[in-house]
Amino acid sequence: MGKGGMSQGEKEDGEEVNMAAWLMGVNTLKIQPFELPSLGPYDVLVRMKAVGICGSDVHFLKTLRLADFVVKEPMVIGHECAGVIEKVGSEVKTLVPGDRVALEPGISCWRCDHCKGGRYNLCPEMKFFATPPVHGSLANQVVHPADLCFKLPDNVSLEEGAMCEPLSVGVHACRRANIGPETNVLIMGAGPIGLVTMLAARAFGAPRIVIVDVDDYRLSVAKEIGADNIVKVSTNLQDIAEEVEKIQKAMGTGIDVSFDCAGLNKTMSTALGATCAGGKVCLVGMGHHEMTVPLTPAAVREVDVVGVFRYKNTWPLCLELLRSGKIDVKPLVTHRFGFSQKEVEEAFETSARGGTAIKVMFNL
Amino acid sequence: MGKGGMSQGEKEDGEEVNMAAWLMGVNTLKIQPFELPSLGPYDVLVRMKAVGICGSDVHFLKTLRLADFVVKEPMVIGHECAGVIEKVGSEVKTLVPGDRVALEPGISCWRCDHCKGGRYNLCPEMKFFATPPVHGSLANQVVHPADLCFKLPDNVSLEEGAMCEPLSVGVHACRRANIGPETNVLIMGAGPIGLVTMLAARAFGAPRIVIVDVDDYRLSVAKEIGADNIVKVSTNLQDIAEEVEKIQKAMGTGIDVSFDCAGLNKTMSTALGATCAGGKVCLVGMGHHEMTVPLTPAAVREVDVVGVFRYKNTWPLCLELLRSGKIDVKPLVTHRFGFSQKEVEEAFETSARGGTAIKVMFNL
Amino acid sequence: MGKGGMSQGEKEDGEEVNMAAWLMGVNTLKIQPFELPSLGPYDVLVRMKAVGICGSDVHFLKTLRLADFVVKEPMVIGHECAGVIEKVGSEVKTLVPGDRVALEPGISCWRCDHCKGGRYNLCPEMKFFATPPVHGSLANQVVHPADLCFKLPDNVSLEEGAMCEPLSVGVHACRRANIGPETNVLIMGAGPIGLVTMLAARAFGAPRIVIVDVDDYRLSVAKEIGADNIVKVSTNLQDIAEEVEKIQKAMGTGIDVSFDCAGLNKTMSTALGATCAGGKVCLVGMGHHEMTVPLTPAAVREVDVVGVFRYKNTWPLCLELLRSGKIDVKPLVTHRFGFSQKEVEEAFETSARGGTAIKVMFNL
Amino acid sequence: MGKGGMSQGEKEDGEEVNMAAWLMGVNTLKIQPFELPSLGPYDVLVRMKAVGICGSDVHFLKTLRLADFVVKEPMVIGHECAGVIEKVGSEVKTLVPGDRVALEPGISCWRCDHCKGGRYNLCPEMKFFATPPVHGSLANQVVHPADLCFKLPDNVSLEEGAMCEPLSVGVHACRRANIGPETNVLIMGAGPIGLVTMLAARAFGAPRIVIVDVDDYRLSVAKEIGADNIVKVSTNLQDIAEEVEKIQKAMGTGIDVSFDCAGLNKTMSTALGATCAGGKVCLVGMGHHEMTVPLTPAAVREVDVVGVFRYKNTWPLCLELLRSGKIDVKPLVTHRFGFSQKEVEEAFETSARGGTAIKVMFNL
Repeated sequence: MGKGGMSQGEKEDGEEVNMAAWLMGVNTLKIQPFELPSLGPYDVLVRMKAVGICGSDVHFLKTLRLADFVVKEPMVIGHECAGVIEKVGSEVKTLVPGDRVALEPGISCWRCDHCKGGRYNLCPEMKFFATPPVHGSLANQVVHPADLCFKLPDNVSLEEGAMCEPLSVGVHACRRANIGPETNVLIMGAGPIGLVTMLAARAFGAPRIVIVDVDDYRLSVAKEIGADNIVKVSTNLQDIAEEVEKIQKAMGTGIDVSFDCAGLNKTMSTALGATCAGGKVCLVGMGHHEMTVPLTPAAVREVDVVGVFRYKNTWPLCLELLRSGKIDVKPLVTHRFGFSQKEVEEAFETSARGGTAIKVMFNL
Repeated sequence: MGKGGMSQGEKEDGEEVNMAAWLMGVNTLKIQPFELPSLGPYDVLVRMKAVGICGSDVHFLKTLRLADFVVKEPMVIGHECAGVIEKVGSEVKTLVPGDRVALEPGISCWRCDHCKGGRYNLCPEMKFFATPPVHGSLANQVVHPADLCFKLPDNVSLEEGAMCEPLSVGVHACRRANIGPETNVLIMGAGPIGLVTMLAARAFGAPRIVIVDVDDYRLSVAKEIGADNIVKVSTNLQDIAEEVEKIQKAMGTGIDVSFDCAGLNKTMSTALGATCAGGKVCLVGMGHHEMTVPLTPAAVREVDVVGVFRYKNTWPLCLELLRSGKIDVKPLVTHRFGFSQKEVEEAFETSARGGTAIKVMFNL
Repeated sequence: MGKGGMSQGEKEDGEEVNMAAWLMGVNTLKIQPFELPSLGPYDVLVRMKAVGICGSDVHFLKTLRLADFVVKEPMVIGHECAGVIEKVGSEVKTLVPGDRVALEPGISCWRCDHCKGGRYNLCPEMKFFATPPVHGSLANQVVHPADLCFKLPDNVSLEEGAMCEPLSVGVHACRRANIGPETNVLIMGAGPIGLVTMLAARAFGAPRIVIVDVDDYRLSVAKEIGADNIVKVSTNLQDIAEEVEKIQKAMGTGIDVSFDCAGLNKTMSTALGATCAGGKVCLVGMGHHEMTVPLTPAAVREVDVVGVFRYKNTWPLCLELLRSGKIDVKPLVTHRFGFSQKEVEEAFETSARGGTAIKVMFNL
Repeated sequence: MGKGGMSQGEKEDGEEVNMAAWLMGVNTLKIQPFELPSLGPYDVLVRMKAVGICGSDVHFLKTLRLADFVVKEPMVIGHECAGVIEKVGSEVKTLVPGDRVALEPGISCWRCDHCKGGRYNLCPEMKFFATPPVHGSLANQVVHPADLCFKLPDNVSLEEGAMCEPLSVGVHACRRANIGPETNVLIMGAGPIGLVTMLAARAFGAPRIVIVDVDDYRLSVAKEIGADNIVKVSTNLQDIAEEVEKIQKAMGTGIDVSFDCAGLNKTMSTALGATCAGGKVCLVGMGHHEMTVPLTPAAVREVDVVGVFRYKNTWPLCLELLRSGKIDVKPLVTHRFGFSQKEVEEAFETSARGGTAIKVMFNL
């Protein structure tokens, strides 16, 4: 793939020029050379093979910002990825060239309290693919720490490897919400994050999962890949009370944990209202910044609100769940593109349009 | 006390008539006879000696409602109480007449999932003093299960015994927020609940406690009884960012847990903004029902929101903390009244006025 | 079944006489009349339909004792049971005559710290079927609290209902050891408790389970019903080091939690040695009282030893796991008997002999 | 101190020669030059000022081994230490020359599952002062990562800084056993580790602490520095039952957590027997390797055995506890020595003799 195309150049001396997709400005992506840092003793050089597009990538492309992060300089985009090891640093003992690996995108400092305390995802010094000013991984090659590259089991494809990144969000959310064989789960929003959270919740043993959305197509996908029940709702705030009742009826038993994978006033209010006393609402989506929600009535029922930020230590579990077949992410990859200037543009447009596109994937 | 007064009558046959303070309507309390249920085998008859007034009592008096609870029939008021055992049921082996006891006010069902699962405070069948339609304990005598009557250590007074009820709110909040010797604590609101939460946090080992209020007097009390630092704030929503900075500076290190003991948009927004990544905000106060707060920025720092409802299994710990002197609640009792019609009215007015009144106590 | 047989009599006035299997002395069981207590307002009368024999029943029959419990008076035996509701007390709202139910055998006091604190299985006042001096449930009828009788889903049989009792031991052990999709599990001992623990661990998501025994037949059953790998070991203490290596190889990855379902010096030493740093060994079996085991080398790897006693709040989960098919206990019921004097004797002999008998069940 | 003495040399060019105490063979310590590694960008050079002697140091001196660790080459001894920063690496931003610091002695890999999962003390690649083959810190100077050097508060001395190491053992044990204001604590053994565990338990809020030993002097020290009650016991295994009773009586209420700071069959058996149902025994001492103890009777009361290995993230808490005065370790430093060949030998002999020596400290 891509051999001799725009995505891969040659230096004058015949050596390969590493090409990458650079975010240059609003709605502007350009495939251009990307010089890699030198390979440290604990690093590996990985040839990228599969890179997925995340909603945050699209958001950066459209606005050059996300939450407090602002793109001020051209930046290589992409962070959901898998590839093949080409070279290993002098101290790397766990990987050899030819190994197929999925990449965890964030490098934390291991010196701060969060890192040492086991919550490295909260590290304030985190260097994360395609979170400015750190470059991403939609490139022919990247250099990355070996301990963040996880060998794929034989029966797990490179695309599935790339899917470990979004799946990790679901897995981390399920861990934080302590999902198990006794936790009946509500999921607000059947977009990519809602769907991976659903798959993760199932793998964690959730006996019953109800998923809610405004869109029939998304709900039908959710049903196909394993929801026990689906509920279509409106965007009207007036309908909350009635919809809570409908959702609780669709569950048929107490809702122990709700994942709000949209993060809107309405979805969060619904989740808070629907969850049983002593339960949890896990806020995964980031729709609204400030939220107007019935927090007090939830608090007096000891319904806790649990936040999630990215993930930690999720790749080994994701790969095991894919290997054993407890989770199948293949149906989520709906569109595929090569790594040329034109295809990169088309791919991002496809992802941005939504519709039937769930996960858009580059094959490099 | 009260002997021969309005609060205590005599039946024709010379037997004592049990008198209680009945909530008859908005702003209407009347001392009237209160017939007790018969003494079951696991019950005790307690002569009330100290009963405190809670904000919720005042709220019921002013509006006949609180949250979803509505007073539809005349109801005996009061639930913060201690007294002396007069009679014990046939199966009671832990108490004898003459024992001084503090009363936990809620009787749960022990048949539902919450009770069996160790969270009896969430029992939907809970029968709780002065939560309609259950009668309260501002009376000469009450009948109560023996296992909810906790013997006072010799050096703990009946008033301190009654204070176990509000203190339990603080203790339960500290347990839910997992306060320990590494938890730096912010408290929003220096009213009675803010103060008992501060005392409890200190007893749980919190190394540094900053307390915030709009009122100078309350802050001065907080400082006197143990706050490391106090911060005066406004009621203006525009000041939040600036005040967060001031509060963080007053703490001088990361704020691990914030208790919002007011429950207003402003206090909750401040708490969410001030708490460090990976921390918790515990919502204790119930000012606003629906809240407009920056929930998403908190969630992406994995700042969780923890709700509290009343308490469970707190009396033994409260009594131990009072006995050992780790907590001193005596400075919180600022006003005392006897149990006559006039004094009951005055006491409630005093409590409602606030000002320098922290805890108003009846001595029966 | 049993109609007109020895197990069921008639009083002179034509009313049925309730018959039960009484433990009268060592190796002596007699079917005799068993007078029931009166039905309290929260009780139900249950006609027993399926009662399993537990190792502890056999132990009592052979020795009249188990741990600190001694049978001093004739006692009705049996505690793994399910039946059909015949009558409900005046306050029972959750069950009606005709409902098929599984019975949780222990009635706790709900007044002690353990009960109130959510660990009612540790209640010192526990009244438990067939733990002396409390009568058991191998009888035509028993009276039991309604909240300890759990309605069977339509697709769960009465025998499966009775199996909730042994399964509860496995479920409780998995909860205490916090089994989930990341916990690789070793099980020492493939007897009934080892097998139900294996089934429970699988249902809790354990990705890989290795089971160890000295007996080929038991291992073959374990393999059939779901072990990933089996290891045959000796009873020789000298073989531990070598066997630990074999077991670790059979797992192929770190052993996170080991369940010792035998409770012998050798099984416990093997479990302690095989478990990875930071893991847990859960002691379920009760073979040896005093144990000689390498506790210190385990402790310095922070391998914790977790004890289990019976269970709490397990019936709803067991029934859900049976309903959904995540657990199938049917293969464990290997022998069935009716409720006549002769069959009761045969059944206990069959259970005591072991061999191919896993669970011996009465159909009444 | 030490200026111009044997412990400090000069190279020919006038540059200081770094001297250290080398363990050369059984009972053989020699002060000899110790060449330091070059200063990495995240390292600091620390001039040692206070180094304590630990029981493990003495054990290595007497036997050249401890658990699985064997001294095969001459090795610098010592690991309880504090000093003054002399030089900082290019990337160090948190420390400057002149800062007084306490040193955490273990450098973990930050690449393994234990490190990433928040339990870096279990890192199999740990490089730990004076655990062979890694050199220790009884030297004029050492090079150490800046993030393992913790700045002392102004009111905390260098000796107290060195005491953070043994204190960390107690703090880690209290964290693992979840000590708080409701945990009544038994401590078996009033040696240095028993005493720091007692101090830590008190700081974590333990309301009542009973400490047990065979030695009157040690018990008197324990009593002086804060034990609520002391119990003298024998070394006779026959006395366990009687002593358990005596200990429980000395506590006067349920023993929630026991720390076995000796690690002998007798102390562990006593701890297991004395701890209440649902409690924990934390095995801190490492007297016996294989243990013969009543594990089953403890397990059926759900008394868990919790192991501890060193500590993690304890220095900030230790320093805060010393700063605030919640813990006073000064009484534990009973003997002081300078850093000459003769004094080093005397110091180790003093520590090995025990008697009234609790902590022996070098002032360099």
